Amino acid sequence: MSEPATLDSVIVRFGGELWLKKAWTKRRYVRCLVRNMKHVLKHHNVEHSEVMRRHGRLFLRTREVAEASSHISRVFGVGSVSPALEVCSNRLEDIVDKSVLLAGDLLGEGNSFAVRCRRVGKHTYGSGDVCRQVGQRVLKELGEYRNLTVDLKHPDIVLGVEVRDNEAFVFNETVKGVGGMPLGTQDRVICILNGDIDSAVAGWLVMKRGCPLVPLYFDCGSCSEEIAGKSALKTAEALLDWAVGFPRWFYSVHYGHVLESIVKNCPSPLTCLLCKRMKYRVAEQIAELKRAEGIVTGETIGEQTSLTIQNLRVLDDAAKRFPVHRPLLGFDKAETERMARKIGTYKTSARSVLGCKAIPHKPATKAKLEEIFKAEAELNINEMTERCLEELEVVGL
Amino acid sequence: MSEPATLDSVIVRFGGELWLKKAWTKRRYVRCLVRNMKHVLKHHNVEHSEVMRRHGRLFLRTREVAEASSHISRVFGVGSVSPALEVCSNRLEDIVDKSVLLAGDLLGEGNSFAVRCRRVGKHTYGSGDVCRQVGQRVLKELGEYRNLTVDLKHPDIVLGVEVRDNEAFVFNETVKGVGGMPLGTQDRVICILNGDIDSAVAGWLVMKRGCPLVPLYFDCGSCSEEIAGKSALKTAEALLDWAVGFPRWFYSVHYGHVLESIVKNCPSPLTCLLCKRMKYRVAEQIAELKRAEGIVTGETIGEQTSLTIQNLRVLDDAAKRFPVHRPLLGFDKAETERMARKIGTYKTSARSVLGCKAIPHKPATKAKLEEIFKAEAELNINEMTERCLEELEVVGL
Repeated sequence: MSEPATLDSVIVRFGGELWLKKAWTKRRYVRCLVRNMKHVLKHHNVEHSEVMRRHGRLFLRTREVAEASSHISRVFGVGSVSPALEVCSNRLEDIVDKSVLLAGDLLGEGNSFAVRCRRVGKHTYGSGDVCRQVGQRVLKELGEYRNLTVDLKHPDIVLGVEVRDNEAFVFNETVKGVGGMPLGTQDRVICILNGDIDSAVAGWLVMKRGCPLVPLYFDCGSCSEEIAGKSALKTAEALLDWAVGFPRWFYSVHYGHVLESIVKNCPSPLTCLLCKRMKYRVAEQIAELKRAEGIVTGETIGEQTSLTIQNLRVLDDAAKRFPVHRPLLGFDKAETERMARKIGTYKTSARSVLGCKAIPHKPATKAKLEEIFKAEAELNINEMTERCLEELEVVGL
Repeated sequence: MSEPATLDSVIVRFGGELWLKKAWTKRRYVRCLVRNMKHVLKHHNVEHSEVMRRHGRLFLRTREVAEASSHISRVFGVGSVSPALEVCSNRLEDIVDKSVLLAGDLLGEGNSFAVRCRRVGKHTYGSGDVCRQVGQRVLKELGEYRNLTVDLKHPDIVLGVEVRDNEAFVFNETVKGVGGMPLGTQDRVICILNGDIDSAVAGWLVMKRGCPLVPLYFDCGSCSEEIAGKSALKTAEALLDWAVGFPRWFYSVHYGHVLESIVKNCPSPLTCLLCKRMKYRVAEQIAELKRAEGIVTGETIGEQTSLTIQNLRVLDDAAKRFPVHRPLLGFDKAETERMARKIGTYKTSARSVLGCKAIPHKPATKAKLEEIFKAEAELNINEMTERCLEELEVVGL
């Protein structure tokens, strides 16, 4: 359906959970949401009026209604969005007039339609009055020569009316928003990106719940393929496109020397675990530096041979100061891939398993902490960690 | 569509990731899957033959094909299931005969159809030959008086043929399986069930990846509503219905005295954090006792006011020996509810937020560890933990 030329506004509804918050939390969250919306619109050069807040809805006026709606629907915390037509008063006659105008654009030969109204505030009419009067006028003015019928249960077209205090809007379409909580309502987290599909999705999920990301990549040098680094960089870019208005830095650690030292000095079945533990240690240091509050990884139970639930315990032991969050813990690979396609990181991620050349033939599946400690005694952990931090590279995206 | 009377077998395909495993891991996983399938079929009194494994498929014969397929599709690790008709040889003529028999049951007036074949092993014919010959015979025997056509792209009915070495099966329908990894391929975890929707879904997700659950409930006595305990018990039952063949125990901790002591002795904004930290401590003890390898909770970032990413760090500090896994970390409430409906725990869970009477008016959102330590100095943590363990109740489900 082509967009009716008459639309001039956008109605924004909050994601489900924002509603459940207490008043003071809600106020803070909505302020954050409005700020993020404005950043996104500015980034895409969409001109618009001030954003008005009325009883659990946000409204804004713009000439580029379609683009504005599409961009806003991808802002975390948005439940749904409707391109709309402003009534410019809350008088019933005006609402009916504008509704008929919109109906004229939308309703085609033989269509059935219904009118639905949501009203908050004090008015001389009820929601039922709005529905009845709009319906009658549409039938009277357009009904006969377009052969229209009213169908309240399964209409072809729904005319929506929102009346909030002094403002009123009429609309037809409702675009589902991405949901979640406004970005920035939680503290920063470090996200270990490998350039694979999983870590990007994990990062996105945590962003969706309000945490800005600090993307961190471990460059394993000769042990990894060159494509991994490029994938990680591109994936970080795609991820941060969801975070307009937030810093766009990418942190890369020269990690080759650590992995080489592990391969050289430690029993091969433990390589992956020792490597991950060292990554956590470095990530903790960077979290401290960047005032982040946690570490996010794309790890899933049983995805790799070494990622057993028992080994996760061994891994977590290395991160004592910050929690390691694994939002994909219960995901199947197919589910992760589906999500990656949705959020736009599938193409930028390296699809095949990134052939880390250090992965042993038979990784330990039930490692004991004592073995790990013994193996780590052969490594100069503090020195390696310090070298990683000294050589930390920061790339602006 | 009514089930054709002729079906006598079930084809079981593995979930996607089972394929990616190395040979020795795959062997162990498939053995576990077969064991779980047998338990489920026995539990539902479905008689069946031995389960055969042939080149990445499992086959079994049964008279109750529909029930068997439905039950097997809900076993973790199953990618998809097809009710089928066994050919009893791998000769091309026999395959064609059986396919025509099945086609006679399935194809109706004016239907279009296609034949698809997957073949592994050495045979005197190729997959293309099977498709062509079956198609020709179906058209010859049924085509004219049922007015059938061949449509390779969008057929009404697909006839599938699976040839594996000496066995061959023909089938039509493919039921999607639940996916995941066979239950029991990972170690046990403690799952803190509150009787709410979230914790049940979190437990299910971890089960889906192979971890058997030990359901643990904290009975907050006078601080919680009675319905919470009942919900938790019923939810545990619904959850463990996904784990036929595994122990069905429910652990309940008398926790009222702990919560009362926290409310009495500590600053009220910290109540929720202190309560959760104590729960983790008790859960750790029980994990040790039951030889579990982790603790699973339904916590989500920002779901409750106290569940900020910063507070998660404060919480994790209390569980030093076992990782706390939060598979719902990045979920919106609506997504969790959708999943709860799918897995059958929505109805048994208490829908509204369970009114814990100890929740403070204004919980801390950015608690500092020092405040927590100071508050905990007023509590007799060891004694409380010990009392919880002494009064631990075990219920057989």
